[in-house]
Amino acid sequence: MVGRLHEEKVFKDPVHRYVHVRDKLIWDLIGATEFQRLRRIRQLGTSYVTFHGAEHSRFNHSLGVYEIMRRILEQFEQRISFAFLEEERLLCLSAALMHDIGHGPFSHSFEKVFHTDHEEWTRRILVGDTQVNRILRKVSPDFPHKVAAIIGKTYENPLIISLISSQIDADRMDYLLRDTYYTGTNYGFFDMERILRVLRPYENKVVVKHTGMHAVEDYIVARYQMYWQVYFHRVTRSAEVVLRKIFERARDLYWRGYKFRWEPVHFIPLFEQDITLEQYLDLDEPTVMFYMSEWCKEKDDILRDLSQRFMNRRLFKYAEYGERVGSVEWKQEIDELFREIGIDPTYYLGVDSPSDLPYDVYRSGEDGDKMPIYLLMPDGGLEELSKCSVIVESISGKRRYDHKLYYPLDFLEDGTRKPHVVREIKRRLRVQ
Amino acid sequence: MVGRLHEEKVFKDPVHRYVHVRDKLIWDLIGATEFQRLRRIRQLGTSYVTFHGAEHSRFNHSLGVYEIMRRILEQFEQRISFAFLEEERLLCLSAALMHDIGHGPFSHSFEKVFHTDHEEWTRRILVGDTQVNRILRKVSPDFPHKVAAIIGKTYENPLIISLISSQIDADRMDYLLRDTYYTGTNYGFFDMERILRVLRPYENKVVVKHTGMHAVEDYIVARYQMYWQVYFHRVTRSAEVVLRKIFERARDLYWRGYKFRWEPVHFIPLFEQDITLEQYLDLDEPTVMFYMSEWCKEKDDILRDLSQRFMNRRLFKYAEYGERVGSVEWKQEIDELFREIGIDPTYYLGVDSPSDLPYDVYRSGEDGDKMPIYLLMPDGGLEELSKCSVIVESISGKRRYDHKLYYPLDFLEDGTRKPHVVREIKRRLRVQ
Amino acid sequence: MVGRLHEEKVFKDPVHRYVHVRDKLIWDLIGATEFQRLRRIRQLGTSYVTFHGAEHSRFNHSLGVYEIMRRILEQFEQRISFAFLEEERLLCLSAALMHDIGHGPFSHSFEKVFHTDHEEWTRRILVGDTQVNRILRKVSPDFPHKVAAIIGKTYENPLIISLISSQIDADRMDYLLRDTYYTGTNYGFFDMERILRVLRPYENKVVVKHTGMHAVEDYIVARYQMYWQVYFHRVTRSAEVVLRKIFERARDLYWRGYKFRWEPVHFIPLFEQDITLEQYLDLDEPTVMFYMSEWCKEKDDILRDLSQRFMNRRLFKYAEYGERVGSVEWKQEIDELFREIGIDPTYYLGVDSPSDLPYDVYRSGEDGDKMPIYLLMPDGGLEELSKCSVIVESISGKRRYDHKLYYPLDFLEDGTRKPHVVREIKRRLRVQ
Amino acid sequence: MVGRLHEEKVFKDPVHRYVHVRDKLIWDLIGATEFQRLRRIRQLGTSYVTFHGAEHSRFNHSLGVYEIMRRILEQFEQRISFAFLEEERLLCLSAALMHDIGHGPFSHSFEKVFHTDHEEWTRRILVGDTQVNRILRKVSPDFPHKVAAIIGKTYENPLIISLISSQIDADRMDYLLRDTYYTGTNYGFFDMERILRVLRPYENKVVVKHTGMHAVEDYIVARYQMYWQVYFHRVTRSAEVVLRKIFERARDLYWRGYKFRWEPVHFIPLFEQDITLEQYLDLDEPTVMFYMSEWCKEKDDILRDLSQRFMNRRLFKYAEYGERVGSVEWKQEIDELFREIGIDPTYYLGVDSPSDLPYDVYRSGEDGDKMPIYLLMPDGGLEELSKCSVIVESISGKRRYDHKLYYPLDFLEDGTRKPHVVREIKRRLRVQ
Repeated sequence: MVGRLHEEKVFKDPVHRYVHVRDKLIWDLIGATEFQRLRRIRQLGTSYVTFHGAEHSRFNHSLGVYEIMRRILEQFEQRISFAFLEEERLLCLSAALMHDIGHGPFSHSFEKVFHTDHEEWTRRILVGDTQVNRILRKVSPDFPHKVAAIIGKTYENPLIISLISSQIDADRMDYLLRDTYYTGTNYGFFDMERILRVLRPYENKVVVKHTGMHAVEDYIVARYQMYWQVYFHRVTRSAEVVLRKIFERARDLYWRGYKFRWEPVHFIPLFEQDITLEQYLDLDEPTVMFYMSEWCKEKDDILRDLSQRFMNRRLFKYAEYGERVGSVEWKQEIDELFREIGIDPTYYLGVDSPSDLPYDVYRSGEDGDKMPIYLLMPDGGLEELSKCSVIVESISGKRRYDHKLYYPLDFLEDGTRKPHVVREIKRRLRVQ
Repeated sequence: MVGRLHEEKVFKDPVHRYVHVRDKLIWDLIGATEFQRLRRIRQLGTSYVTFHGAEHSRFNHSLGVYEIMRRILEQFEQRISFAFLEEERLLCLSAALMHDIGHGPFSHSFEKVFHTDHEEWTRRILVGDTQVNRILRKVSPDFPHKVAAIIGKTYENPLIISLISSQIDADRMDYLLRDTYYTGTNYGFFDMERILRVLRPYENKVVVKHTGMHAVEDYIVARYQMYWQVYFHRVTRSAEVVLRKIFERARDLYWRGYKFRWEPVHFIPLFEQDITLEQYLDLDEPTVMFYMSEWCKEKDDILRDLSQRFMNRRLFKYAEYGERVGSVEWKQEIDELFREIGIDPTYYLGVDSPSDLPYDVYRSGEDGDKMPIYLLMPDGGLEELSKCSVIVESISGKRRYDHKLYYPLDFLEDGTRKPHVVREIKRRLRVQ
Repeated sequence: MVGRLHEEKVFKDPVHRYVHVRDKLIWDLIGATEFQRLRRIRQLGTSYVTFHGAEHSRFNHSLGVYEIMRRILEQFEQRISFAFLEEERLLCLSAALMHDIGHGPFSHSFEKVFHTDHEEWTRRILVGDTQVNRILRKVSPDFPHKVAAIIGKTYENPLIISLISSQIDADRMDYLLRDTYYTGTNYGFFDMERILRVLRPYENKVVVKHTGMHAVEDYIVARYQMYWQVYFHRVTRSAEVVLRKIFERARDLYWRGYKFRWEPVHFIPLFEQDITLEQYLDLDEPTVMFYMSEWCKEKDDILRDLSQRFMNRRLFKYAEYGERVGSVEWKQEIDELFREIGIDPTYYLGVDSPSDLPYDVYRSGEDGDKMPIYLLMPDGGLEELSKCSVIVESISGKRRYDHKLYYPLDFLEDGTRKPHVVREIKRRLRVQ
Repeated sequence: MVGRLHEEKVFKDPVHRYVHVRDKLIWDLIGATEFQRLRRIRQLGTSYVTFHGAEHSRFNHSLGVYEIMRRILEQFEQRISFAFLEEERLLCLSAALMHDIGHGPFSHSFEKVFHTDHEEWTRRILVGDTQVNRILRKVSPDFPHKVAAIIGKTYENPLIISLISSQIDADRMDYLLRDTYYTGTNYGFFDMERILRVLRPYENKVVVKHTGMHAVEDYIVARYQMYWQVYFHRVTRSAEVVLRKIFERARDLYWRGYKFRWEPVHFIPLFEQDITLEQYLDLDEPTVMFYMSEWCKEKDDILRDLSQRFMNRRLFKYAEYGERVGSVEWKQEIDELFREIGIDPTYYLGVDSPSDLPYDVYRSGEDGDKMPIYLLMPDGGLEELSKCSVIVESISGKRRYDHKLYYPLDFLEDGTRKPHVVREIKRRLRVQ
């Protein structure tokens, strides 16, 4: 079972040209139900409303991360005759392929509203009663746990962890290139082939040969640009806010005993915070979109309106919120003004601060889960990247926030609201 | 209402870099519910099971066709000072944007099984009670009908029809480039910019300046390659066959009074061949996928098995069928053999002949709906392309068929069937 | 000496991204004087006057051919565990790198006028008293002769010959991609990575697995397009004609005892058809251009005028000549008319028929030096490509000629010539 | 004379796809002898020894700058209805095309050794007795002076100057994209189309709409990367040093009355610092390379050795020199040690400090000739870029030096030198 395929299989991939599969284990994992499910979960959640090309799935990305990992191991062997033992080689490849398997539909909104945790679900899928688990166990009984340990960053060999989760890991390299390709922006492009050539295993981590410093610098800037140009785009964030409000409204209606046109069977375990592995695996984006279509016809005004907004891209506008973040009163007053004109602020005023996202912009040396990048200097010593690069230094360690308050401008301007209250709201939100 | 936007809007597009919108009409059409619905229908149906990058929607493609049309008109103006009247300019742009609006989910399978016709639905959406209709009517009361007439190829000015539907129209140029980009293949690439430079309005059609002959030749070959490498790919076709069998099984069960776990509300109007515009617009791919997920748990063995096959990419294998096409007995004998080992051939044997598809490989001068391509020669006369190009001549007018018989090889080999019958089937299907 | 480099070296290459060098032999050959000289000879001769990007050298291309050969051998090893003996591996790589080393400046014009033969010079450089020879001899005393035998197609192992010279060899694959890249056209692009994956050694030749048929088809069309769009471009051919006339005039002046401003030391051995290896190696394009600059100031009207034409891109126009090719009288009458108005037809009327070029458009199965392409069919047999592909069939075996007569239209129209003769010439040449 | 062409002409350009020419003036300027001469001068001097693809000429680049300028003006017209008067439009286009016309072969080395100044020569070519001048004068008698004034930054309308020479001008945008393309690196890539969309004329300069901030940031980083990865590459710089030493040696020999094998006719005016316009225009890279080939056979050991080094890429190695820059004694001692082992430090020790180059890395607001970049903020005010971007701030205003000492390591190790002196030199230069 755990052997090489008789003949190599390939997938045509727009980003890496071809994804090469030579191990039966990998081929079987790709065919597993839980992995095929990633075809039904988009990589970039709501970004497609802004960048219409960004319709690619996590299936796409997961294959890409696997392929990068495969190339890293190949480079290590060819270039510096460094090879892992067979089981650790399979561990690296499996962990790369499986690292996102716990993601749900519109992950970020889901996690915020329903308090699910995709990393926890990844672990449960790997070690639970699943096809993926049965395939992994064929390598050895504790193989699924080892894969989970790598993804959970508790595995005994930190070198392998750093290939999967560091500031310059296979995951990040793939998503930058892939998201750049599908959005059609150029910001995330960097010379991956060059970087693969200069990665080196060094004691318990992966480091970068100093000659590759500028290539890595370019990668860090690519990452920085993608965050500000793509991932934190205001239209995308607005769609996220609306989506969260929809989920909150549906949940609140459920608890109040509201009678839905179509019972939200798939959502009830989430509403009740009591969900089995099987129920979780049933959740995908077509399911969410199916309910959303139904909710566009619900009699509840708020659920219906929000769902229609999401479906037809009639989103909220934003006001800068940075300086107000600490001021509870200011927000309460806005809430009050909204209530005065008949708009429920619970569902129609959304604060969004993208640095809250589980993505993190490069933070060198900071506590946290991602190791910094070290350069391997000519004298054989290591030097942390931001010490050598003024550009990286300039953007490292600085968490940037983008606090915005999202609200339905069209409601304010629909001509049915008290003009002086609307004027006051607009003044406070600095609507021009 | 029908004017220029205060400031041009753009969409970032990976294929054309930017899609430019300057007319309020176009901006409003893009925002219409019926157009946003195209985000939920994939451009290439089941191709994503073969080419994982091919997850792009018809929304994507429709914007692209619009942009190419916009550039053609711009070139006409800038290069040869040819301009349509304002209403005809808007007609060209609207028809380009709207040409696919009637497509349903997995269009080709749907049309085969449920006898829907996307061109008819396009017409109904344009002239029926829809947002799109209300927006178009702001130009003039008969504007929606004119758009429909262009798409239906009955409009009085054939020059405009040829921009939308000819052997080298905005539709084809976009889908070749776009499908190439998203699949990651290179076969569909050609130099569109060059072609746009050599298109010329000539009496009642668009022709190509003779200096562009080789560029057009390249486009025709690109098209030919895409059909054989991408659109007719056997894995994709196998997924189509399985999908059709699923729809047929669900329909047959419905008519037999089968009790579904989850009533197929959205499908019933299709099963009953009596569907309203509103019901049709409710159908999208998330809806189909939602039912498919449910059907994976149905008690009916056939519906459940087929649905699981589709979801988990456990598809049918194929046997060459070309020489057998005419032989009813041969097929009946195979059916019989399948029955003998307990496999229902109605749902487990599928004939597929992709040239049946409504796509047609370039056929010069043949009767049919697509005009041939004419070159504008130095002496001012016209010459049909295949007269000038040996390459085009070699592939024109020849309809190629790719008859295949699809069947579940895994069933035959599951060890539960009578060995001598299985052997006989394999012999006849030439399974190696 | 003949070993692996301590650390792999790479060249950044726009076409193949990186050229990888792991053998000391290859590294040393690249550094040899005779190979560095290829930096001073353009790959596409006079094409740069038409496509200003086409300024790349044969050095560029030779590295590319080497890299493709290296990848073919790597694929053979990785994919089907086929490996040559070490010496044959080095032979393949060396022959790929060296295959163009005998080229002189503006090769085609040179060979026509001075009857040099770059293949003969390649052989002399490999086996003569050169740095290249001394480096090759370190492998074994007869190694240089073996390299020459491969390039001369007399080597005992035809499999290796077919990697270097067949209808789908490393040389052609590189020049199509490279010339496409530098000219900025897209015609020569094809999916090389796919082709490398389907090449197979089969008895005494390289064949193509049948699954790669369409990729090879695409390559053949790419080649066809490049010939007609780039290599045979009329402006380029005109520059060739002018260049040949310059060389002829300079030679004729030399034999008449003309006193040059600057003695054409480097050309005299060519004029006298008696040239040593050292003298040949001294000839490069800067040398030719240096003389050309001087000739722009010569007192001889013809040499000066032609040189200025070449330098300042004031080239000849062309008349179609196809149907006249066989008619000696027609040409003699034109010559006579030119003489009547004081233009010497020897230097101002040039016939050009590009299929005379040592390039040949794909000819399947024809006698000659390039083997046809065979497909390896599922049943293990071989099938010649044009038997399977209607496109290839349509362009194979047909030699296309592009006969043109080039002449200085500006002279005819300078207002100093007898009007009735000019009129008659224009009528016969069909000048509009 | 000064009108539109009957039909637009295009050049195929790999970077901008097409260069469009609609004005007869521009067409004629491109055909002028002095402009065609730029075909014989490489854009990146000695970079081709490092990046073999970098063989493109200044002709290439000049067309590109013109095309960008044309697009900027087109955007201004289409997007914000801003148009220059006809003469100023032609001024912009002509200045863009002509801005590099004064460059000589291997410009930087030439200017260092022979104290020529390409800006001064540009002016002389524009206003002197040249074809270019005669063509420009057809617009108006003082038109050539106006073009020269724009390039010399003394023209009365600073807006036009800022289009040609600012921190984000047509010149820089072209060379980054072009040098990236031909070297095959990716560092210089940025989204030019986006930047062209956000440029705005604002009083007397060009500014950038604030929405384009990240695109400009990306451009600045691209520029920074190109300097450190490409323009200051050590192998390139080494070739520069060797080239300068060759010129110095040839000049010194001339003044000592040395009898050259081939009298350096073209160099004598440079050696004597007394050169006419005609003599200057005769200098191009083929001429320099021609002499270099001859010098490879000179009897003078130093000139011959240095020339062979340059021709065969046998360059100098480098030692870090940064901390020693100010120490005259340290350098004198190294010189002395070289003399002790028979190597003349005048020609075999070269200091190189690339920030001395006339390129300047982005310096915001510093005195000098390049204006900083201003963002046009939502409130209509301007903000200097580095105030808004931490990345730009991190690299602005900081001149980085890369002081290196280049020397022939192979000489030290040829086994003929006193070992203890060689050891001492290696110790001081820290050769490992």
